Formats: sequence, structure tokens, C-alpha cells
Amino acid sequence: MPAPSFYFPAPRTQKFCSQCGAALVIRIPPDDNRQRDVCENCGAIHYQNPRNVVGVLPVLDDTVLLCKRAIQPRYGKWTLPAGFMELSETTAQGAMRETQEEAGAQIELGPLYTVIDVPAVNQVHIFYLGKVLSPELHPGPESLEAGFFKESEIPWGDLAFRTVSSTLEHYFKDKPSGQFPTRHYDVLFPVGD
Amino acid sequence: MPAPSFYFPAPRTQKFCSQCGAALVIRIPPDDNRQRDVCENCGAIHYQNPRNVVGVLPVLDDTVLLCKRAIQPRYGKWTLPAGFMELSETTAQGAMRETQEEAGAQIELGPLYTVIDVPAVNQVHIFYLGKVLSPELHPGPESLEAGFFKESEIPWGDLAFRTVSSTLEHYFKDKPSGQFPTRHYDVLFPVGD
Repeated sequence: MPAPSFYFPAPRTQKFCSQCGAALVIRIPPDDNRQRDVCENCGAIHYQNPRNVVGVLPVLDDTVLLCKRAIQPRYGKWTLPAGFMELSETTAQGAMRETQEEAGAQIELGPLYTVIDVPAVNQVHIFYLGKVLSPELHPGPESLEAGFFKESEIPWGDLAFRTVSSTLEHYFKDKPSGQFPTRHYDVLFPVGD
Repeated sequence: MPAPSFYFPAPRTQKFCSQCGAALVIRIPPDDNRQRDVCENCGAIHYQNPRNVVGVLPVLDDTVLLCKRAIQPRYGKWTLPAGFMELSETTAQGAMRETQEEAGAQIELGPLYTVIDVPAVNQVHIFYLGKVLSPELHPGPESLEAGFFKESEIPWGDLAFRTVSSTLEHYFKDKPSGQFPTRHYDVLFPVGD
């Protein structure tokens, strides 16, 4: 079989059973109350659930670390290092991993800071505070560049996501008090202003 | 096609592509760094991610609401109302829904209280505090019974999960102060003591 000419993340729409390969039907399974993708051949029910995006707000002195995205969506926009949580890791481990992968930054992880529901895209975004241990950065392939920004230098009009801009806004509001309690809220329009 | 004799949640192990039905292979896709289930026929990459369990610690005066599980795992053990977060809902909406489904309780949702990583089962458990508005309960099919327990009446030896017992422990420790900040921690052994 020739290799596919391109690869893509499997979308939420499922047509075939991952267990036996039969065509799926949409129905409410026994003892359930909503429609699922169900295999009437082998009986497998293909539940789908929201995904977590985990990241860090990395701080060095009076600056924060941002990465310029080299991938879609929001190519060329600035973001905090973050990405999908993987199996077999904690939210903290995932947040550390993404910071390493996207910025090549060495950090000491701080407290859980923002927990943001984004139901429009079936995601929950979770950001930790982090202390950058060295100004040396090694941006990975998902970042065009990475750098440190004072509050007055943040490219507010060119941030990738509302979860990123709102986390930064909370940080600069909380900073004078030195208190950073966990903040939880919803973002209804992930890339809106 | 005759209906299957029983239905089951599709396990994490995937053999066939949900998009085209071809057999999957395990490989590292281009621009990635870990093994995925990949379709070499259509190019779909079948990522898998942890799931969120969302629930409530419902409070009525000096009691908390617990449900006795009518389902596996942990049949017959006591739990806080909680379940898998569904698509198109927030963690708060999911927590409210589970409380309605499992206990039939009317509540006013309070603050985000515990965020618990459970990497052994690829889950994050999220509990809110909630205020019970009426002592009337209508346990659903997933509960054998539901009831209100004072601290001295909690069946500590018969709780279903460590995320439940630790959330209750935090609550009774925080209660004298009247302050319930969001608490974040890991649970390594979900049903251990």
C-alpha cells in the first residue's frame, strides 16, 4: 500500500468501529440518555469527550515567555507554551513537556493558575505559573521564535487565543499583590477579542 | 444484522481506522515524537487523550450528599456524584448534570474546589462545591441510594475512590475557616487507601 500523501488528525466524526472495522450507527445505547457512535456488529460504544490543553505562564524577572506559533491554527500569533495533554502524564507533566518542546526553556513549575472551560471547541485549558531558570531558549519546530516580554511589550493584538490573553491579564492584575489564587472561568469565543 | 448480545465502551486499543475502516499501524507520524495509531490508507492519525471526570461535593447544612454506586467499578461503594465530562458542556455544566442524574438533587453550584490528576487511569477529576437547595432526592439508575451524612457518619472505609475521600477530607479540614481555595494534587492509586 503506498503511503498517504498527507496525514491529518482523525476528526470527531467516526464512520467505522475501531474494534472490528464494521460501519457505525448513531443511536442511544441501553442505559444511556444520549446518542453515541455504536457498533451493532461487536457492541462497542465509541464515547467522545473533551480534551485538555495544558500550558505554562513562564516568568523571568519582570518578563513572561511567549512563543510565536509555527503551526495552524493561528500561525504567526503569539502564545504561551501549551498543547494537548497526553496519556500517562499529569497536567503538570504535560505543561512542563510543552514548555520544553515549544520554547526549550528550563523552568521550575509553580502553582495551578487558570482553569478555563472552552466548550465551543470541547476543550479545557489549564495553565500553571512557572519560574524560568535560565534565559537560554531553544524554540522547537512548532515555534517560529520565542522571547521574553515585559508587560508593556506584550503583543496584545497578536495573541493566539483568548485563554492565553486572559491568563496574562489575570497575571498582571495579580502581580502587585504577589497572590496568585487558582482562577476558573469560561471562554465562549476562543479566538475572539 | 442481529443486535449484539451486549454493549461495551470501546477500549483504548484501536485496530481499525474510524474514517476509512482500514487496519491501523502503530508508528510515529511525521512532525511528531511519539507512537500513535496511524492509518496508512487515508492518513488519519488517531490521537488519544486523558478524560475528565466532573462532580460536586453537595452540602446541606452540616451534611454532605453521597451516592451508593449501582454500577461497576466499585459497585456498592459510596461516592460523590460525578462522571465523565461530555462534549459541548463545561466542567460546571457536567458536574451539575451528574448531580441531577445520580442523586436527583437540586443544587446551586459553588466554586471549583479540587483538581486531581489520576495518571494511572488517564483521568483528571474535578470537583465543585455545591449547595443543596432541597433535601428531596431522586437517585437515578446509577445509584442504589443517596443520602446526607454528617462528618461523623461518613462511611470512610466504604468510599469508592481516593479522589472522593481526599476531596471530603479537604472539605472538613477547610470548613472551620470558611475558606475553600481550589486545591490541586495527584492521586497515584485511585482506589487504594
